[in-house]
Amino acid sequence: MARTPVADALTAQAPVAHIRICGWVRTRRDAKGFSFLEINDGSCLANIQCIVDEALPDYAVIKDVNTGAAVDVRGELVESPGKGQKWEVRAAALTLLGGADAETYPLQKKRHSDEFLRTIAHLRARTNKFGAAFRIRSEAAYAIHEFFRERGFFHVHTPILTGSDCEGAGEMFRVTTLPASGASSTPVPPSGNRFEADFFGKECNLTVSGQLEAEALAMGLGKVYTFGPTFRAENSNTARHAAEFWMIEPEFAFADLNDDMELAEAMTRTVVTRVLERCAADIELFDRFVDNGLIERLRTIADQPFARVSYREAIELLKASGRKFDYPVSFGLDLQTEHERYLAEEHFGKPVIVYNYPKSIKAFYMRLNDDNETVAAMDVLVPRIGELIGGSQREERLDVLEARIREMDQNPDDYWWYLDLRRFGSVPHAGFGLGFERLLMLLTGIANIRDVVPFPRTPGNLEF
Amino acid sequence: MARTPVADALTAQAPVAHIRICGWVRTRRDAKGFSFLEINDGSCLANIQCIVDEALPDYAVIKDVNTGAAVDVRGELVESPGKGQKWEVRAAALTLLGGADAETYPLQKKRHSDEFLRTIAHLRARTNKFGAAFRIRSEAAYAIHEFFRERGFFHVHTPILTGSDCEGAGEMFRVTTLPASGASSTPVPPSGNRFEADFFGKECNLTVSGQLEAEALAMGLGKVYTFGPTFRAENSNTARHAAEFWMIEPEFAFADLNDDMELAEAMTRTVVTRVLERCAADIELFDRFVDNGLIERLRTIADQPFARVSYREAIELLKASGRKFDYPVSFGLDLQTEHERYLAEEHFGKPVIVYNYPKSIKAFYMRLNDDNETVAAMDVLVPRIGELIGGSQREERLDVLEARIREMDQNPDDYWWYLDLRRFGSVPHAGFGLGFERLLMLLTGIANIRDVVPFPRTPGNLEF
Repeated sequence: MARTPVADALTAQAPVAHIRICGWVRTRRDAKGFSFLEINDGSCLANIQCIVDEALPDYAVIKDVNTGAAVDVRGELVESPGKGQKWEVRAAALTLLGGADAETYPLQKKRHSDEFLRTIAHLRARTNKFGAAFRIRSEAAYAIHEFFRERGFFHVHTPILTGSDCEGAGEMFRVTTLPASGASSTPVPPSGNRFEADFFGKECNLTVSGQLEAEALAMGLGKVYTFGPTFRAENSNTARHAAEFWMIEPEFAFADLNDDMELAEAMTRTVVTRVLERCAADIELFDRFVDNGLIERLRTIADQPFARVSYREAIELLKASGRKFDYPVSFGLDLQTEHERYLAEEHFGKPVIVYNYPKSIKAFYMRLNDDNETVAAMDVLVPRIGELIGGSQREERLDVLEARIREMDQNPDDYWWYLDLRRFGSVPHAGFGLGFERLLMLLTGIANIRDVVPFPRTPGNLEF
Repeated sequence: MARTPVADALTAQAPVAHIRICGWVRTRRDAKGFSFLEINDGSCLANIQCIVDEALPDYAVIKDVNTGAAVDVRGELVESPGKGQKWEVRAAALTLLGGADAETYPLQKKRHSDEFLRTIAHLRARTNKFGAAFRIRSEAAYAIHEFFRERGFFHVHTPILTGSDCEGAGEMFRVTTLPASGASSTPVPPSGNRFEADFFGKECNLTVSGQLEAEALAMGLGKVYTFGPTFRAENSNTARHAAEFWMIEPEFAFADLNDDMELAEAMTRTVVTRVLERCAADIELFDRFVDNGLIERLRTIADQPFARVSYREAIELLKASGRKFDYPVSFGLDLQTEHERYLAEEHFGKPVIVYNYPKSIKAFYMRLNDDNETVAAMDVLVPRIGELIGGSQREERLDVLEARIREMDQNPDDYWWYLDLRRFGSVPHAGFGLGFERLLMLLTGIANIRDVVPFPRTPGNLEF
């Protein structure tokens, strides 16, 4: 007999004479003549109540049916006389699949600290909070795929292993099959190539972005997006940084900065709208217990157009705010999280897109504006998070791009294939990067990135 | 004026007075008084024909509108008198966005070898073959997400960076922030931990599978699947192996080997069915030019139930085949690709699931059968490819699992958290792994894995 997921049982339209529920016991309560089991199977936040009559032949196992135990219950789905639930199961048979010793099972019924739960990340998906977080993670990922597909974008896979260290080599992880240094160190070979004997014959790093490769694919497929892991070897222990995180990076041809802003806003609002609708119970949990006001904030994002200001205007707004910031505010300096949050949370009270940043603080591939001072970049800033998305129109003019590469003291030859995209059939195009974990922090109100990733990677933390 | 994708223009229901087409010129043909441009924008395989009258003021640029050039055409969408196309564009304005020098642009109109195209992987998405392959890749990925979501599976992200080297350390890539050996080698510290100063303080590798972590998540969420990159540092240069490839790994609770086989078959048939339907023109290209008979083979997969035989039966079939194989056939030996293909292509003429393999040739986590000789493993074998999917029911019994780990001369302590899943609320569960690139080779008939990945990684190849 096939099992019925709890999510389906709880939304049944009529009683069911024979039903099979499998799941983990959240609580057991013994009363006169009966035991009540609250069973969760991960399909939704809610448990289903199962009533086990002591007259059942199987009732003897009930003493081992503790919190955390796995059971298989067969019986009848009937209307529940109890409050807060429409349906319950009257058990006809109860099987204990796997016990959970009350002395040693770490997830007894009480609230545990996030810090403690990180030490048992292999079990925390069994809690309400993390079950909800990971269901939202799944639905948000799907909504992103849906959104881009509806708009004619193709999902592409850009490489994780990369030979280019263009964007800040110091922060990259190196990948190797050579022996660990300090063990059996090998001398530098006569060729001078330290990586001659390595798997790829040259230095290999973990990607920090799939953008450049995605641009190449957009120059053939028109509209593409990546959804893959990226890596930063930054030795910083903050609530916002992880060494391994997932990024979504659309790139599309025949597009300018306005198209880019429109796409970023539409994507954010569509994903928020769909997650609000499809994960209502899970989102409500976070609104009640983690971040009061979450739903209202998400509704604002879904319903209201984002504000848009140029970087120049943003600087003026910050100066005129009368606020004392920790970091200075001046044209030519990057916005810090405190500035970004002030703009989104207090000045606009909703997401704001800041565009046309000074070229001195942005990457070489962003398109130079006619003022020769700013580039066609844009960041989407949201309440509680600050920067959610960073993007730009890309420089499509070969000579300007080469000059910018030289300005950064880099060698255009290292970018031969990227420059080829401007040599042959170059077109205006744009793209952005969205940190998936940042989006999840926005969607759940969870304040620490370690709690939106199933198994987070930070300096010194590689367990599981 | 917004551009209309070529895919939309070609499926228009009526003429359009004002349309804008942007794309890359595949060919230009000059006739008396007119030029004909075949334009592709990546949205579909087909080009749209644009007719440029020499009376147009913009006509002067036509001499630079070569193969590979990017153009922006505005005009009228009208019924085409020509054969093989319903619609064409009568240009009212033509803009050259980016030229492509006829002497240096590598993709002139002729067939290029796959080997050559790999050296210009940044441009090959502009060819019919690779455009089609990458559109199919995108649609297959989406069909997989759809399939699992329809069945109540949650998409989870398991870690890429891992501290466990359980499954064959010799084949893993190491990840480090320590200096490269041979450069400035550091002595082993007094602690004896060579990785003390490394980012994670211990040895870190790239994952070969997310299975163990996915099992942990399935023990809370019930049904999950991963879709992420995995890595093998095997120094083998074959048409079937890449150092970086993508895997789909479902894990689901309250499931046995039969459920696992049912899921694998349903997934394969659903994805094949949807790709056949949604990528008809792209698949047809491969049937015509790459792999005659492809569509018929895919239809068989979509329409007919897979065969199922035990490993024992499979060995008997191979012995009775009268075939001379390169590798020996005997109970206890693993099946080689030649055996797998014989079974799928010749004996059954369709996919076959082989189950209950000898424990000696399978991994420790596969559930031991009552015969104490075989495990509840299954492989899905398909024509042309051999093994497409490998899976099993997982060992849920703590004592049996610990004994299996010891049998492999490994230390159960290294698996503390994985064993916890059997200590607390253990349940029967199952899962499998599907190599995404193998699936794409099946879907396209492309014989070399390097040609279904946009930027393939193999020994010595790290360009782009």
